[in-house]
Amino acid sequence: MKKRWIALYVENQIGVLAKIAGLFSGKSYNLESLTVGTTEDETISRMTIVVNSNDEIFEQIKKQLNRLVEVIRVTDYTMMNVYRKELMFVKVKKCSREDRSELFHIAEIFHVSVVDYGNNSILLESVQTEERNEELLRLLQEAFTNLEVVRGGSVAIESIHKNRCD
Amino acid sequence: MKKRWIALYVENQIGVLAKIAGLFSGKSYNLESLTVGTTEDETISRMTIVVNSNDEIFEQIKKQLNRLVEVIRVTDYTMMNVYRKELMFVKVKKCSREDRSELFHIAEIFHVSVVDYGNNSILLESVQTEERNEELLRLLQEAFTNLEVVRGGSVAIESIHKNRCD
Repeated sequence: MKKRWIALYVENQIGVLAKIAGLFSGKSYNLESLTVGTTEDETISRMTIVVNSNDEIFEQIKKQLNRLVEVIRVTDYTMMNVYRKELMFVKVKKCSREDRSELFHIAEIFHVSVVDYGNNSILLESVQTEERNEELLRLLQEAFTNLEVVRGGSVAIESIHKNRCD
Repeated sequence: MKKRWIALYVENQIGVLAKIAGLFSGKSYNLESLTVGTTEDETISRMTIVVNSNDEIFEQIKKQLNRLVEVIRVTDYTMMNVYRKELMFVKVKKCSREDRSELFHIAEIFHVSVVDYGNNSILLESVQTEERNEELLRLLQEAFTNLEVVRGGSVAIESIHKNRCD
């Protein structure tokens, strides 16, 4: 089992997302995350899909996706030079002044922005690889109890340089 | 027709995404974007859904979502204080040295990061409201021809302060 990334160009039509999501659930493929947005061409959407699978299942997934008429192009990012990030918000609630002070230190080290600040809560915005977001989350979960977490899922694009992936 | 945001807590199970997406396509609701990620509780996922609809349809959508057994909570962000951003990558290909120089100026004004730089291409990372990302995109589309765009969709959380929405 390995983590893999797929960039998927599809027709921007009603029902395409349901079809793609249905393909994964129908076959019980382990869909880690999926993001979708429009592209430079408004009639076309682009998805970034993260799956956890072995080689055999992954080949099946790519074949099944290619078979859908709404799918224009499937690009396997697993072996390519990819730049990828995930947008995550974490609100820490019911935190003391000392808590907030510590959160500022964590934000600095993790290159995270403090985007809102209240008398007993703080809002962090993190744009990192999903692995790095997970590390940040583990750290916060050990130190604080009242968290509200919103994760956007990995967004990926082929990078220009090989080692510009993270 | 107005743009509206919904935060949706659902059981983290196979098939839930397909069910939600199917609900929107089955009723031909205009789903602008959908992001999904895990939360502070691994058994629960949270979605941010953007829809374009009138009041009546929007009430229907909320009712239909609430009826699904996998849906834990539906929060309508339309009238709330919300902090929201979208992660977008734009690669400008086949660009000259002058083009790249202009792109640096645009990046500075739009608070966008240049995250990779090649001999004939440049990669921008933008974390803004979707409206602001659209403005940036229009500007780039007028000035450059070889764009590759990946948009992650809006991610939203209730903000601490009223005017901290953008």
